[in-house]
Amino acid sequence: MSADTPAHDTSPADPPATTGPVCVLGLGLIGGSLLRAVADSGRVAFGYNRSAATVSEATAAGHDADDDLERTLRRAAETGALIVVAVPVTALDPVLDAIARWAPNCAVTDVISVKQAVAQSMSRTGLSTRWVGGHPMAGTSQSGWAATDPTLFAGASWVVGADDGVDPDIWSAVADLALSVGAVVVPVASDEHDRVVAAISHLPHVTAAITAAVAGGDGRLALRLAAGSFRDGTRVAGTAVPLQRAMLEANTTALLGAMDEALDRLTRARDDLRDNGSVEVVVDDGHRVRTRWEAMTSTTAPPITGVSIGATGWAAELRRQAHLGRVWTNESRTQIRSASPS
Amino acid sequence: MSADTPAHDTSPADPPATTGPVCVLGLGLIGGSLLRAVADSGRVAFGYNRSAATVSEATAAGHDADDDLERTLRRAAETGALIVVAVPVTALDPVLDAIARWAPNCAVTDVISVKQAVAQSMSRTGLSTRWVGGHPMAGTSQSGWAATDPTLFAGASWVVGADDGVDPDIWSAVADLALSVGAVVVPVASDEHDRVVAAISHLPHVTAAITAAVAGGDGRLALRLAAGSFRDGTRVAGTAVPLQRAMLEANTTALLGAMDEALDRLTRARDDLRDNGSVEVVVDDGHRVRTRWEAMTSTTAPPITGVSIGATGWAAELRRQAHLGRVWTNESRTQIRSASPS
Repeated sequence: MSADTPAHDTSPADPPATTGPVCVLGLGLIGGSLLRAVADSGRVAFGYNRSAATVSEATAAGHDADDDLERTLRRAAETGALIVVAVPVTALDPVLDAIARWAPNCAVTDVISVKQAVAQSMSRTGLSTRWVGGHPMAGTSQSGWAATDPTLFAGASWVVGADDGVDPDIWSAVADLALSVGAVVVPVASDEHDRVVAAISHLPHVTAAITAAVAGGDGRLALRLAAGSFRDGTRVAGTAVPLQRAMLEANTTALLGAMDEALDRLTRARDDLRDNGSVEVVVDDGHRVRTRWEAMTSTTAPPITGVSIGATGWAAELRRQAHLGRVWTNESRTQIRSASPS
Repeated sequence: MSADTPAHDTSPADPPATTGPVCVLGLGLIGGSLLRAVADSGRVAFGYNRSAATVSEATAAGHDADDDLERTLRRAAETGALIVVAVPVTALDPVLDAIARWAPNCAVTDVISVKQAVAQSMSRTGLSTRWVGGHPMAGTSQSGWAATDPTLFAGASWVVGADDGVDPDIWSAVADLALSVGAVVVPVASDEHDRVVAAISHLPHVTAAITAAVAGGDGRLALRLAAGSFRDGTRVAGTAVPLQRAMLEANTTALLGAMDEALDRLTRARDDLRDNGSVEVVVDDGHRVRTRWEAMTSTTAPPITGVSIGATGWAAELRRQAHLGRVWTNESRTQIRSASPS
C-alpha cells in the first residue's frame, strides 16, 4: 500500500454496524484491555501500537496487532471498523491526521480523560461529525501491555459524550461498545465531563502527590511507619509522571477550579484547627460525601428510561437523567427497541 | 470485690514476665484484634470493654472479656498482666485513674495514635515509670468487634516509645508483645512520633476529606463517575467522624505543621499550573516519595543490630538506627541474647 492514497473510496456506508469490527489505536492499559475485552466478546478486534515491542507482546498473546498505522487504518476503512483512539492526549494530533487521511468515514471514539481538548483536535482535523467521545472510568497506577486486563471495564462507568448535535448512530455504536465489555454508560456533555473529572480524578492526583511529598520530608523513618492511610491516599502518585502530566495538563482550566476549591477548604480547615482545636467541619464534610458515594456504588445504578436515541431532544434528555445518577444500560436500550420496533 | 480497696498488695514483682498474661482495655478494632492475636499466640489474654454488647460478641467468639473495669484491673494486678490501653484518647483519663487505683504496679502500654498527649496523662496519674507507649501502624476504616482481625498486625510496623529514661524491662515486654503478633518494632521518641504520624497518617485524613468534599460539590453525576483515584484517595474519609476527630485533635500542633506544608505545596502547584501550565514539580515530588516507599515496603526491613536493651545509651541507639529505616525484630533480640547470655 502507498502512503499517498487516501482510502475514501473503500469507506463503509452509514450507519456503522454495532457488531462490526473494532480498531483500537494505542495498546496501553486502556487500549490493550479494550482490545482483549472486545476480542473476548466474540467481535473482530485489531489494534495498532507505535512500539513494536508492545505489538509483539499483544501478538504473542494471540491478538491482532500491528505497528503500521497506515496499514491499520486502511484496514479499518475497508472493514467499516469503529475506531477507538487510545493514545495519550499528547500523541493525539498525528493520529487524528492519519485517520483523516486513511479512514475519514469511519466512526471514531476515544478513551482519553479530557473531552474539550479532544473535541478541538477533532474539529481541526475535520473529524467532528464522525466522532463521539468516550472515557471509561477505569484504570490502575500500572501501565503497558503487561497490566492489561479484559475485565477492567466490568461494572465501570463509561462516559459517552452527549453534546447537542452528536450523531445518534455513532453514539449508539459507542454506547454498545461500552456495554459489550461490561460497563454502564454515563451520557455527559464535554465541558461538564472536564469539570467533573477534574474534581473526581485529576484533583486526587494532586492531593495524593502533595500528601506523599509532605511525608517524604521526614525521611526513611516516616516511610517505614507509613501504612494504610498513606498507602491508599498516595496510590495514584505512583502512576508514571508523563501519563499524569499529560492527563492533568490537558485539563488545566477545570483543574485550576478544583485546586482553588481545595485550597479554600484546606485553609479553612487549618484555621479551624488553629483557632478552635477542631477538625469537625472538614472531617464531617468529607465523611458525608464518602458515605454517600459508598451507598451509591453498593447498589445497582437505576437505568435511564424512555429515551429513543435520535428522537428530538434525545441528548439533552440523556444528560438530564445522568444528572440524577442514572446510567444507560442494556435495559435502557432494550426497553426502547421493544417500545418502538423498527 | 470492693471498689475502695486498692490492689497494691497483690501486685507482681518486677520485671514483668514477657510471656505472662495480657490485659487489653478497649475492644475496638485495634484492641479487639490484639486480644484475638495474643490469644492465638497461646498466651493468656483477657479484656475489658465499656459496652456490654461488645463484651457479649467477644465472649460469644470464645474470648475472655468483661464489662467491669475494676474487676478486670484487679485481675491484671493479681496475675501481673501487661496492660494495653486501647481506648480512644478522649476516654483515656478515667481509664488511667482506674489503673492507678487498681493496678498501679502493672506494666502499661497503649496503642493510641499520639504519644505526647498520652505521656502527659500518664505523668498526671503517676504511671509514667510503668509505661512504655506503643502505636501499631495498622487499621482500616472499619470499627467495632465485627471488624477485628487477629492477623491485623502481621508485617505491620509497631512504634514502641524510646524516650530517654524508659524502663528497659517494660520496653522489652512491649516490644515482645508486638513481635508475638507478627509486627516489627520501630523505636521512636514521643515528640518525633507525633510529628511523623501527623505527616504520614493524620494529614492523609485531612486531604482525603477535602478531596471527597470537592467531588461532592458536583452532585450525583460526579459520584457516579468517581472511580479508582477517588475510591483510594478518599478511603479514610469513611472512618467514623468521632474516631477521626479524637485522633487528629489530639495531635493538633504537629498536624498544623503538616497542614501548613501541604498548603504551601498546594499553593505552589496551583500557581505553577496557572502561570506555566505545568504540574511537573508537584507530580514529580509525589512520585519520587511514593516509589521510594514502594521500594522500601517491597523488601524486608533491615534489623537493628548490636543494641543490648538497658545498656548505657540503648534508647538513643535504637532511635538512631530507626532513623536509618531499621526495625527491631526477633533477629535483633536473639542476636543480643546469644551475644550476652544472662
